Amino acid sequence: MVATRKQLAAWAALKNRRDRLEQGLFLVEGAKLVAEVQAAGWPIEALLEEPEAIARVSTLRTPPEVLAVVRLPEPAVSDWEPGSLVFLLDGVQDPGNLGTIVRTAAWFGINTVFCSTDSVDLWQPKVLQATMGAFLRVACPVVDPVVWVKGLPPETPVFGTFLEGENLFTAPLPRAGVIILGNEGHGIRPELGALVTRRFTIPQFGSGESLNVAAATVLLGAEFRRRMV
Amino acid sequence: MVATRKQLAAWAALKNRRDRLEQGLFLVEGAKLVAEVQAAGWPIEALLEEPEAIARVSTLRTPPEVLAVVRLPEPAVSDWEPGSLVFLLDGVQDPGNLGTIVRTAAWFGINTVFCSTDSVDLWQPKVLQATMGAFLRVACPVVDPVVWVKGLPPETPVFGTFLEGENLFTAPLPRAGVIILGNEGHGIRPELGALVTRRFTIPQFGSGESLNVAAATVLLGAEFRRRMV
Repeated sequence: MVATRKQLAAWAALKNRRDRLEQGLFLVEGAKLVAEVQAAGWPIEALLEEPEAIARVSTLRTPPEVLAVVRLPEPAVSDWEPGSLVFLLDGVQDPGNLGTIVRTAAWFGINTVFCSTDSVDLWQPKVLQATMGAFLRVACPVVDPVVWVKGLPPETPVFGTFLEGENLFTAPLPRAGVIILGNEGHGIRPELGALVTRRFTIPQFGSGESLNVAAATVLLGAEFRRRMV
Repeated sequence: MVATRKQLAAWAALKNRRDRLEQGLFLVEGAKLVAEVQAAGWPIEALLEEPEAIARVSTLRTPPEVLAVVRLPEPAVSDWEPGSLVFLLDGVQDPGNLGTIVRTAAWFGINTVFCSTDSVDLWQPKVLQATMGAFLRVACPVVDPVVWVKGLPPETPVFGTFLEGENLFTAPLPRAGVIILGNEGHGIRPELGALVTRRFTIPQFGSGESLNVAAATVLLGAEFRRRMV
Protein backbone atom coordinates (compact mmCIF):
# COMPACT_ATOMS: atom_id res chain seq x y z
CA MET A 1 0.00 0.00 0.00
CA VAL A 2 1.08 3.60 -0.54
CA ALA A 3 0.86 5.68 2.60
CA THR A 4 0.80 9.45 2.76
CA ARG A 5 3.45 11.40 4.62
CA LYS A 6 0.78 12.37 7.15
CA GLN A 7 -0.20 8.75 7.76
CA LEU A 8 3.43 7.76 8.26
CA ALA A 9 3.87 10.55 10.80
CA ALA A 10 0.76 9.42 12.68
CA TRP A 11 1.97 5.82 12.77
CA ALA A 12 5.47 6.85 13.86
CA ALA A 13 3.80 8.49 16.88
CA LEU A 14 2.46 5.07 17.91
CA LYS A 15 5.69 4.52 19.82
CA ASN A 16 3.97 6.66 22.50
CA ARG A 17 1.30 5.18 24.75
CA ARG A 18 -0.94 8.24 24.47
CA ASP A 19 -0.94 8.07 20.68
CA ARG A 20 -1.70 4.35 20.76
CA LEU A 21 -4.74 5.02 22.92
CA GLU A 22 -5.86 8.02 20.84
CA GLN A 23 -5.51 6.23 17.50
CA GLY A 24 -6.50 2.78 18.79
CA LEU A 25 -3.53 1.28 16.97
CA PHE A 26 -0.15 -0.29 17.77
CA LEU A 27 2.98 -1.30 15.84
CA VAL A 28 4.20 -4.80 15.12
CA GLU A 29 7.72 -4.97 13.72
CA GLY A 30 9.51 -7.80 11.94
CA ALA A 31 8.39 -10.62 9.65
CA LYS A 32 8.03 -13.29 12.35
CA LEU A 33 5.84 -11.23 14.67
CA VAL A 34 3.77 -9.81 11.79
CA ALA A 35 3.14 -13.34 10.47
CA GLU A 36 1.95 -14.43 13.92
CA VAL A 37 -0.41 -11.48 14.18
CA GLN A 38 -1.80 -12.28 10.73
CA ALA A 39 -2.17 -15.97 11.59
CA ALA A 40 -4.05 -15.03 14.75
CA GLY A 41 -6.45 -12.97 12.62
CA TRP A 42 -5.90 -9.66 14.38
CA PRO A 43 -7.17 -6.71 12.29
CA ILE A 44 -4.29 -5.10 10.42
CA GLU A 45 -4.78 -1.46 9.45
CA ALA A 46 -1.70 -1.17 7.27
CA LEU A 47 1.17 -3.40 6.21
CA LEU A 48 4.36 -1.57 5.27
CA GLU A 49 6.96 -3.26 3.07
CA GLU A 50 8.65 -0.21 1.50
CA PRO A 51 12.03 0.42 3.19
CA GLU A 52 11.54 4.20 3.16
CA ALA A 53 8.10 4.05 4.74
CA ILE A 54 9.26 1.50 7.32
CA ALA A 55 12.26 3.64 8.26
CA ARG A 56 9.91 6.55 9.02
CA VAL A 57 7.68 4.54 11.32
CA SER A 58 9.95 1.91 12.91
CA THR A 59 11.14 2.17 16.51
CA LEU A 60 14.09 -0.16 15.87
CA ARG A 61 17.63 1.03 15.27
CA THR A 62 17.78 -1.36 12.31
CA PRO A 63 14.35 -1.03 10.66
CA PRO A 64 12.68 -4.39 9.99
CA GLU A 65 11.76 -5.72 6.54
CA VAL A 66 8.06 -5.50 7.34
CA LEU A 67 5.95 -3.51 9.78
CA ALA A 68 2.25 -3.74 10.56
CA VAL A 69 -0.06 -1.14 12.03
CA VAL A 70 -2.58 -3.17 14.02
CA ARG A 71 -5.86 -2.31 15.69
CA LEU A 72 -5.68 -2.43 19.50
CA PRO A 73 -8.00 -5.12 20.87
CA GLU A 74 -10.72 -4.35 23.37
CA PRO A 75 -9.31 -4.15 26.92
CA ALA A 76 -9.08 -7.67 28.40
CA VAL A 77 -11.70 -8.66 30.98
CA SER A 78 -10.38 -7.85 34.43
CA ASP A 79 -12.33 -10.43 36.43
CA TRP A 80 -10.42 -13.23 38.09
CA GLU A 81 -11.71 -16.59 36.96
CA PRO A 82 -12.12 -18.73 40.09
CA GLY A 83 -9.85 -21.77 40.03
CA SER A 84 -7.27 -20.14 37.73
CA LEU A 85 -3.66 -19.30 38.44
CA VAL A 86 -2.70 -15.77 37.36
CA PHE A 87 0.09 -13.23 37.74
CA LEU A 88 -0.50 -9.70 39.00
CA LEU A 89 2.29 -7.25 38.17
CA ASP A 90 2.79 -4.38 40.59
CA GLY A 91 4.58 -1.58 38.73
CA VAL A 92 6.92 -3.63 36.55
CA GLN A 93 8.86 -0.98 34.61
CA ASP A 94 11.28 -2.70 32.28
CA PRO A 95 9.89 -3.57 28.82
CA GLY A 96 12.12 -6.64 28.58
CA ASN A 97 10.86 -7.88 31.94
CA LEU A 98 7.19 -7.50 31.03
CA GLY A 99 7.75 -9.20 27.69
CA THR A 100 9.65 -12.07 29.29
CA ILE A 101 6.96 -12.46 31.96
CA VAL A 102 4.20 -12.72 29.33
CA ARG A 103 6.30 -15.22 27.35
CA THR A 104 6.90 -17.24 30.52
CA ALA A 105 3.19 -17.16 31.38
CA ALA A 106 2.37 -18.67 27.97
CA TRP A 107 4.95 -21.43 28.54
CA PHE A 108 3.43 -22.37 31.88
CA GLY A 109 -0.18 -22.11 30.74
CA ILE A 110 -0.93 -19.04 32.81
CA ASN A 111 -3.44 -17.32 30.57
CA THR A 112 -3.85 -13.98 32.30
CA VAL A 113 -1.28 -11.46 33.50
CA PHE A 114 -2.97 -8.59 35.34
CA CYS A 115 -0.93 -5.36 35.09
CA SER A 116 -1.14 -2.45 37.52
CA THR A 117 -1.93 0.90 35.90
CA ASP A 118 1.66 2.03 36.59
CA SER A 119 3.28 -0.98 34.90
CA VAL A 120 4.94 -0.50 31.50
CA ASP A 121 2.43 -0.69 28.63
CA LEU A 122 2.07 -4.10 26.96
CA TRP A 123 1.66 -2.49 23.52
CA GLN A 124 5.06 -0.84 23.51
CA PRO A 125 7.14 -2.32 20.66
CA LYS A 126 9.99 -3.49 22.94
CA VAL A 127 7.54 -5.36 25.17
CA LEU A 128 5.80 -7.04 22.22
CA GLN A 129 9.17 -8.07 20.80
CA ALA A 130 10.22 -9.65 24.10
CA THR A 131 6.97 -11.63 24.34
CA MET A 132 7.96 -13.44 21.12
CA GLY A 133 4.28 -13.41 20.13
CA ALA A 134 2.93 -14.60 23.46
CA PHE A 135 0.87 -11.37 23.73
CA LEU A 136 -1.48 -13.04 21.24
CA ARG A 137 -2.22 -15.86 23.69
CA VAL A 138 -2.05 -14.23 27.12
CA ALA A 139 -4.63 -11.64 28.23
CA CYS A 140 -3.18 -8.65 30.09
CA PRO A 141 -5.94 -6.56 31.72
CA VAL A 142 -4.88 -3.31 33.37
CA VAL A 143 -6.16 -2.88 36.94
CA ASP A 144 -5.67 -0.87 40.11
CA PRO A 145 -3.86 -3.65 41.98
CA VAL A 146 -5.03 -2.81 45.51
CA VAL A 147 -8.67 -2.30 44.52
CA TRP A 148 -8.55 -5.43 42.38
CA VAL A 149 -7.16 -7.71 45.10
CA LYS A 150 -9.64 -6.32 47.62
CA GLY A 151 -12.42 -7.27 45.19
CA LEU A 152 -11.35 -10.94 44.90
CA PRO A 153 -13.66 -13.62 46.33
CA PRO A 154 -12.83 -14.21 50.00
CA GLU A 155 -10.36 -17.07 50.56
CA THR A 156 -8.63 -16.47 47.23
CA PRO A 157 -4.95 -17.26 47.88
CA VAL A 158 -2.72 -14.26 47.18
CA PHE A 159 1.01 -15.04 46.89
CA GLY A 160 4.08 -12.85 46.94
CA THR A 161 7.84 -13.30 47.31
CA PHE A 162 9.71 -11.54 50.09
CA LEU A 163 13.08 -11.78 51.81
CA GLU A 164 11.44 -13.81 54.54
CA GLY A 165 8.72 -16.35 54.01
CA GLU A 166 8.04 -20.02 53.34
CA ASN A 167 10.62 -21.79 51.18
CA LEU A 168 9.06 -21.74 47.70
CA PHE A 169 10.68 -25.05 46.82
CA THR A 170 9.17 -26.98 49.73
CA ALA A 171 5.99 -25.10 50.70
CA PRO A 172 2.70 -26.81 49.91
CA LEU A 173 1.05 -25.06 46.96
CA PRO A 174 -2.57 -24.96 45.83
CA ARG A 175 -3.49 -25.12 42.14
CA ALA A 176 -5.06 -21.69 41.91
CA GLY A 177 -4.58 -18.15 43.11
CA VAL A 178 -2.94 -14.82 42.39
CA ILE A 179 0.86 -14.49 42.26
CA ILE A 180 2.00 -10.89 42.77
CA LEU A 181 5.28 -9.72 41.23
CA GLY A 182 6.73 -6.44 42.39
CA ASN A 183 8.51 -3.46 40.91
CA GLU A 184 12.19 -3.90 39.94
CA GLY A 185 13.48 -1.50 42.58
CA HIS A 186 10.88 -1.41 45.32
CA GLY A 187 9.23 -4.82 45.21
CA ILE A 188 5.56 -5.10 46.15
CA ARG A 189 4.03 -1.84 47.43
CA PRO A 190 3.13 -2.05 51.14
CA GLU A 191 -0.67 -1.62 50.69
CA LEU A 192 -0.61 -4.60 48.35
CA GLY A 193 1.86 -6.59 50.44
CA ALA A 194 -0.61 -6.31 53.32
CA LEU A 195 -3.14 -8.26 51.23
CA VAL A 196 -0.78 -11.19 50.56
CA THR A 197 -1.96 -14.35 52.31
CA ARG A 198 1.09 -16.57 51.62
CA ARG A 199 4.62 -15.13 51.68
CA PHE A 200 7.34 -17.08 49.88
CA THR A 201 11.10 -16.84 49.76
CA ILE A 202 13.21 -18.08 46.88
CA PRO A 203 16.17 -19.87 48.47
CA GLN A 204 19.52 -18.23 47.83
CA PHE A 205 22.60 -20.46 47.43
CA GLY A 206 25.31 -17.91 46.73
CA SER A 207 26.33 -14.33 47.34
CA GLY A 208 23.76 -12.67 45.09
CA GLU A 209 21.63 -9.96 46.59
CA SER A 210 18.50 -10.34 44.55
CA LEU A 211 16.88 -11.98 41.58
CA ASN A 212 15.41 -10.14 38.61
CA VAL A 213 11.58 -10.01 38.70
CA ALA A 214 11.33 -12.00 35.46
CA ALA A 215 13.62 -14.63 36.98
CA ALA A 216 11.40 -14.86 40.05
CA THR A 217 8.37 -15.19 37.77
CA VAL A 218 9.88 -18.17 35.99
CA LEU A 219 10.58 -19.97 39.25
CA LEU A 220 7.08 -19.26 40.58
CA GLY A 221 5.36 -20.38 37.38
CA ALA A 222 7.43 -23.56 37.19
CA GLU A 223 6.92 -24.37 40.86
CA PHE A 224 3.13 -24.11 40.80
CA ARG A 225 2.85 -26.09 37.58
CA ARG A 226 5.20 -28.96 38.41
CA ARG A 227 3.30 -29.63 41.63
CA MET A 228 0.10 -30.14 39.62
CA VAL A 229 1.49 -33.11 37.69
CA MET B 1 38.39 15.91 39.41
CA VAL B 2 38.56 18.18 36.38
CA ALA B 3 38.82 16.26 33.13
CA THR B 4 39.99 17.67 29.83
CA ARG B 5 37.76 17.66 26.78
CA LYS B 6 40.09 15.07 25.23
CA GLN B 7 39.80 12.76 28.25
CA LEU B 8 36.02 13.02 28.19
CA ALA B 9 35.97 12.09 24.50
CA ALA B 10 38.21 9.08 25.16
CA TRP B 11 35.97 7.91 28.00
CA ALA B 12 32.81 8.43 25.95
CA ALA B 13 34.32 6.00 23.42
CA LEU B 14 34.36 3.30 26.13
CA LYS B 15 30.84 2.41 25.10
CA ASN B 16 32.59 0.46 22.31
CA ARG B 17 34.24 -2.89 23.02
CA ARG B 18 37.32 -2.06 20.92
CA ASP B 19 37.95 1.14 22.85
CA ARG B 20 37.54 -0.68 26.17
CA LEU B 21 40.22 -3.17 25.13
CA GLU B 22 42.54 -0.47 23.74
CA GLN B 23 42.25 1.77 26.79
CA GLY B 24 41.93 -1.05 29.34
CA LEU B 25 39.02 0.79 30.95
CA PHE B 26 35.24 0.47 31.28
CA LEU B 27 32.36 2.64 32.49
CA VAL B 28 30.30 2.19 35.64
CA GLU B 29 27.19 4.38 35.80
CA GLY B 30 25.00 5.29 38.75
CA ALA B 31 25.62 5.78 42.46
CA LYS B 32 24.68 2.26 43.55
CA LEU B 33 26.92 0.43 41.09
CA VAL B 34 29.81 2.89 41.61
CA ALA B 35 29.58 2.38 45.38
CA GLU B 36 29.75 -1.39 44.91
CA VAL B 37 32.81 -1.11 42.68
CA GLN B 38 34.48 1.13 45.24
CA ALA B 39 33.58 -1.24 48.10
CA ALA B 40 35.05 -4.13 46.14
CA GLY B 41 38.29 -2.18 45.80
CA TRP B 42 38.45 -2.17 42.02
CA PRO B 43 40.89 0.47 40.70
CA ILE B 44 39.01 3.59 39.66
CA GLU B 45 40.74 5.76 37.07
CA ALA B 46 38.32 8.67 37.29
CA LEU B 47 35.17 9.54 39.20
CA LEU B 48 32.90 12.06 37.49
CA GLU B 49 30.35 14.03 39.51
CA GLU B 50 29.97 17.13 37.31
CA PRO B 51 26.68 16.95 35.35
CA GLU B 52 28.28 18.36 32.19
CA ALA B 53 31.17 15.92 32.21
CA ILE B 54 28.85 13.01 32.97
CA ALA B 55 26.51 13.96 30.12
CA ARG B 56 29.45 13.81 27.70
CA VAL B 57 30.51 10.32 28.76
CA SER B 58 27.31 8.55 29.85
CA THR B 59 25.62 5.92 27.70
CA LEU B 60 22.28 6.39 29.47
CA ARG B 61 19.43 8.46 28.10
CA THR B 62 19.12 10.08 31.52
CA PRO B 63 22.71 10.61 32.64
CA PRO B 64 23.41 9.31 36.17
CA GLU B 65 24.48 11.46 39.11
CA VAL B 66 27.88 9.77 39.22
CA LEU B 67 30.00 7.84 36.74
CA ALA B 68 33.27 5.98 37.25
CA VAL B 69 35.93 5.08 34.72
CA VAL B 70 37.34 1.79 36.00
CA ARG B 71 40.38 -0.27 35.06
CA LEU B 72 39.46 -3.56 33.34
CA PRO B 73 40.59 -6.54 35.44
CA GLU B 74 42.91 -9.21 34.07
CA PRO B 75 40.98 -11.76 31.97
CA ALA B 76 39.47 -14.40 34.27
CA VAL B 77 41.14 -17.82 34.37
CA SER B 78 39.52 -20.06 31.80
CA ASP B 79 40.21 -23.43 33.43
CA TRP B 80 37.28 -25.43 34.71
CA GLU B 81 37.68 -26.21 38.38
CA PRO B 82 36.85 -29.91 38.83
CA GLY B 83 33.83 -30.41 41.06
CA SER B 84 32.33 -27.02 40.24
CA LEU B 85 29.06 -26.19 38.53
CA VAL B 86 29.41 -23.53 35.82
CA PHE B 87 27.49 -21.97 32.95
CA LEU B 88 28.88 -21.79 29.41
CA LEU B 89 27.15 -19.23 27.18
CA ASP B 90 27.10 -19.99 23.47
CA GLY B 91 26.61 -16.72 21.61
CA VAL B 92 24.20 -14.97 23.99
CA GLN B 93 23.55 -11.63 22.26
CA ASP B 94 21.18 -9.60 24.40
CA PRO B 95 22.86 -7.40 27.04
CA GLY B 96 19.89 -7.79 29.39
CA ASN B 97 20.07 -11.56 29.09
CA LEU B 98 23.79 -11.72 29.87
CA GLY B 99 23.37 -9.38 32.82
CA THR B 100 20.44 -11.36 34.18
CA ILE B 101 22.36 -14.63 33.74
CA VAL B 102 25.34 -13.30 35.72
CA ARG B 103 22.99 -11.98 38.44
CA THR B 104 21.24 -15.37 38.55
CA ALA B 105 24.58 -17.18 38.76
CA ALA B 106 25.52 -15.12 41.82
CA TRP B 107 22.19 -15.95 43.46
CA PHE B 108 22.70 -19.67 42.97
CA GLY B 109 26.38 -19.68 43.96
CA ILE B 110 27.62 -20.41 40.45
CA ASN B 111 30.90 -18.54 40.50
CA THR B 112 31.97 -18.78 36.88
CA VAL B 113 30.09 -18.01 33.68
CA PHE B 114 32.19 -18.92 30.63
CA CYS B 115 31.29 -16.78 27.61
CA SER B 116 31.92 -17.73 23.99
CA THR B 117 33.96 -15.21 22.02
CA ASP B 118 30.83 -14.26 20.06
CA SER B 119 28.71 -13.55 23.15
CA VAL B 120 27.91 -9.93 24.03
CA ASP B 121 30.72 -8.28 26.02
CA LEU B 122 30.35 -8.35 29.80
CA TRP B 123 31.83 -4.86 30.13
CA GLN B 124 29.15 -3.15 28.07
CA PRO B 125 27.29 -0.69 30.32
CA LYS B 126 23.86 -2.28 29.73
CA VAL B 127 25.18 -5.69 30.74
CA LEU B 128 26.85 -4.37 33.90
CA GLN B 129 23.64 -2.55 34.84
CA ALA B 130 21.57 -5.72 34.45
CA THR B 131 23.99 -7.73 36.64
CA MET B 132 23.11 -5.38 39.54
CA GLY B 133 26.73 -5.61 40.67
CA ALA B 134 27.04 -9.39 40.36
CA PHE B 135 29.88 -8.91 37.82
CA LEU B 136 32.05 -8.15 40.86
CA ARG B 137 31.46 -11.64 42.27
CA VAL B 138 31.14 -13.88 39.22
CA ALA B 139 34.13 -14.54 36.93
CA CYS B 140 33.33 -14.49 33.20
CA PRO B 141 36.25 -15.87 31.16
CA VAL B 142 35.92 -15.64 27.37
CA VAL B 143 36.60 -18.93 25.55
CA ASP B 144 36.16 -20.69 22.23
CA PRO B 145 33.30 -22.90 23.41
CA VAL B 146 34.00 -25.95 21.23
CA VAL B 147 37.74 -25.98 21.93
CA TRP B 148 37.09 -25.36 25.61
CA VAL B 149 34.60 -28.22 26.04
CA LYS B 150 36.89 -30.57 24.11
CA GLY B 151 39.64 -29.71 26.59
CA LEU B 152 37.60 -30.62 29.68
CA PRO B 153 38.69 -33.66 31.75
CA PRO B 154 37.06 -36.82 30.37
CA GLU B 155 33.81 -37.75 32.11
CA THR B 156 32.96 -34.10 32.84
CA PRO B 157 29.16 -33.88 32.54
CA VAL B 158 28.09 -31.37 29.87
CA PHE B 159 24.43 -30.33 30.00
CA GLY B 160 22.21 -28.57 27.51
CA THR B 161 18.48 -27.94 27.04
CA PHE B 162 16.75 -29.04 23.87
CA LEU B 163 13.21 -29.60 22.66
CA GLU B 164 13.63 -33.29 23.41
CA GLY B 165 15.53 -34.68 26.36
CA GLU B 166 15.17 -35.82 29.96
CA ASN B 167 12.62 -33.92 32.02
CA LEU B 168 14.74 -31.36 33.91
CA PHE B 169 12.40 -31.48 36.89
CA THR B 170 12.69 -35.24 37.46
CA ALA B 171 16.06 -36.25 35.94
CA PRO B 172 18.78 -37.26 38.41
CA LEU B 173 21.38 -34.49 38.59
CA PRO B 174 25.00 -34.55 39.71
CA ARG B 175 26.49 -31.72 41.77
CA ALA B 176 29.02 -30.57 39.20
CA GLY B 177 29.41 -30.02 35.49
CA VAL B 178 29.00 -27.54 32.68
CA ILE B 179 25.57 -26.17 31.74
CA ILE B 180 25.50 -24.79 28.18
CA LEU B 181 23.06 -21.99 27.32
CA GLY B 182 22.48 -21.19 23.68
CA ASN B 183 21.96 -18.18 21.48
CA GLU B 184 18.56 -16.42 21.63
CA GLY B 185 17.60 -17.33 18.07
CA HIS B 186 19.56 -20.44 17.17
CA GLY B 187 20.10 -22.25 20.47
CA ILE B 188 23.28 -24.27 20.96
CA ARG B 189 25.46 -24.50 17.81
CA PRO B 190 25.56 -28.05 16.40
CA GLU B 191 29.33 -28.62 16.93
CA LEU B 192 28.81 -27.80 20.60
CA GLY B 193 25.52 -29.69 20.88
CA ALA B 194 27.39 -32.79 19.73
CA LEU B 195 29.55 -32.54 22.87
CA VAL B 196 26.59 -32.45 25.28
CA THR B 197 26.42 -35.60 27.40
CA ARG B 198 23.03 -35.00 29.07
CA ARG B 199 20.15 -33.40 27.15
CA PHE B 200 17.34 -31.84 29.18
CA THR B 201 13.91 -30.52 28.33
CA ILE B 202 12.09 -27.92 30.39
CA PRO B 203 8.49 -29.14 30.65
CA GLN B 204 5.96 -26.92 28.93
CA PHE B 205 2.50 -26.58 30.47
CA GLY B 206 0.84 -24.11 28.10
CA SER B 207 0.85 -22.83 24.55
CA GLY B 208 4.18 -20.99 24.66
CA GLU B 209 6.70 -21.84 21.98
CA SER B 210 9.89 -21.16 23.85
CA LEU B 211 11.46 -19.75 26.98
CA ASN B 212 13.92 -16.88 27.06
CA VAL B 213 17.52 -18.04 27.60
CA ALA B 214 17.77 -16.14 30.89
CA ALA B 215 14.55 -17.85 32.02
CA ALA B 216 16.01 -21.26 31.18
CA THR B 217 19.15 -20.33 33.09
CA VAL B 218 17.17 -19.57 36.23
CA LEU B 219 15.38 -22.92 36.10
CA LEU B 220 18.63 -24.81 35.50
CA GLY B 221 20.49 -23.03 38.29
CA ALA B 222 17.63 -23.54 40.75
CA GLU B 223 17.20 -27.20 39.81
CA PHE B 224 20.84 -28.17 40.31
CA ARG B 225 21.10 -26.29 43.58
CA ARG B 226 17.89 -27.46 45.23
CA ARG B 227 18.89 -31.07 44.65
CA MET B 228 22.11 -30.52 46.65
CA VAL B 229 20.27 -29.64 49.84
